[in-house]
Amino acid sequence: MLLINGECKNTVDATDRGLHYGDGLFETIEISQSQPVFLQQHLARLKTGCQRLKIPFPAEALLLDEITQLSKEVEHGVIKLMLTRGSGGRGYRQPDTIQATRIVALHPYPDYPADYKTAGITVRFCEYRLGLNPTLAGIKHNNRLEQVLARAEWQDEFQEGLMLNLNEHVIEGTMSNLFVLKDQVVYTPEIKLSGIKGIMRQVIIELARQNNIVVQEALLTRELVLAADEIFLTNSVMGIWPVKSLEDNAYPIGPVTQKIMAYLAEYKAADIK
Amino acid sequence: MLLINGECKNTVDATDRGLHYGDGLFETIEISQSQPVFLQQHLARLKTGCQRLKIPFPAEALLLDEITQLSKEVEHGVIKLMLTRGSGGRGYRQPDTIQATRIVALHPYPDYPADYKTAGITVRFCEYRLGLNPTLAGIKHNNRLEQVLARAEWQDEFQEGLMLNLNEHVIEGTMSNLFVLKDQVVYTPEIKLSGIKGIMRQVIIELARQNNIVVQEALLTRELVLAADEIFLTNSVMGIWPVKSLEDNAYPIGPVTQKIMAYLAEYKAADIK
Repeated sequence: MLLINGECKNTVDATDRGLHYGDGLFETIEISQSQPVFLQQHLARLKTGCQRLKIPFPAEALLLDEITQLSKEVEHGVIKLMLTRGSGGRGYRQPDTIQATRIVALHPYPDYPADYKTAGITVRFCEYRLGLNPTLAGIKHNNRLEQVLARAEWQDEFQEGLMLNLNEHVIEGTMSNLFVLKDQVVYTPEIKLSGIKGIMRQVIIELARQNNIVVQEALLTRELVLAADEIFLTNSVMGIWPVKSLEDNAYPIGPVTQKIMAYLAEYKAADIK
Repeated sequence: MLLINGECKNTVDATDRGLHYGDGLFETIEISQSQPVFLQQHLARLKTGCQRLKIPFPAEALLLDEITQLSKEVEHGVIKLMLTRGSGGRGYRQPDTIQATRIVALHPYPDYPADYKTAGITVRFCEYRLGLNPTLAGIKHNNRLEQVLARAEWQDEFQEGLMLNLNEHVIEGTMSNLFVLKDQVVYTPEIKLSGIKGIMRQVIIELARQNNIVVQEALLTRELVLAADEIFLTNSVMGIWPVKSLEDNAYPIGPVTQKIMAYLAEYKAADIK
């Protein structure tokens, strides 16, 4: 089910700047018990992205209305909310008046095996190196060829791949953020030159800190990640997936990962109450 | 006029990966005397891009047929040829079988004032810094937020803006490639970490060399560009635009620029004969 500028339809104008330049932003929101999870955080990030790209943020009531409408259709699912700069302008030059294209799409919840959460996943390092781009880092814009190329490096042998950037720092998974525990400190890569600041990443940082777990945003090398005591990956749809295997190393679903998973379950339940 | 996978229509599927990820490539081709200019070079670059992004290149006869069909509609115009990875796949993961979306769009030739060519244009340096990305540099892919952001820095006060990358090297204009003459050597930025290898750029390099003008691909600083004897910008639609003014400096349309403009006019006439 798909709403494009409020209308039920399946196509966009072929002149849309989202298509031509990836000139847009998106959010991927879990629907649980027919309600959008962490909706305020998603809208806040979308707003930040709009400010960065100078795309007008739509009336919030309108977004809320459309998201609520689609959420009610399913018990468990995913909404992809996309906002492009719409049509018009001349080449890269944007039109004087921007009429953003607003796409709200409802998808079934992915059929992830339950043991990804309970037993952990198998992960590799990608060969592709993320470019460096401080202006675009952090926001969830539609220029995502890097993730597409990195994800094309394997088929089903792994559940996720970790990406380093050109500075050889580990930044994130192709579709997830990374947390590693070492000596009772949780590290997550700083997202300044490359990468996306996931909503779930931010939730986990806050939850851990509220519960007196030390979390540091840091520059992580491949060696530091491999030497971790515990590793887990996060995104808004899958929540937390512990890593049981990275390259030739095995990792436990250790006590800190388990604690954070419990905090998240509780916090998520409260969010959609 | 618009052909999408051979059909006359104005919309694309809202699931197209071009829209979601900028997962595609494009070419902008001048139509002169109802014929596409430098068509073989454009198709060759598109093929290189397809190899790089692993998008299947369409049957060449089909592309030629569609481009010829639209070219006949106008005496002078522009064709934008776009190829996306189509729909399907799961998130960033591409589908096992890729059905590319092929878009051939005919546009009127832009109404550029004639004196851009004869008297030169006024140019600035952009504040935005191009990211570093060796894997994506060179090809004309649809991840073009950088150019959109750079072009948003001014309105009509300038005809083009020059972009530096994070290493503070001058790379290109927002929609053009850069050539500067200094002490009888023509320099153009090397396109290894950032930037697009324009078809017109390649044509100019070859034409100049055939005519015993020394051309070097080099790392250019802002200072070197400002100190140039002559400057000109190129792309497939505008051809060559001499720069008469960059920041506070004035430049002549000097003898080397004039010679190269003459070589290009001759070569282009032969190409569409």
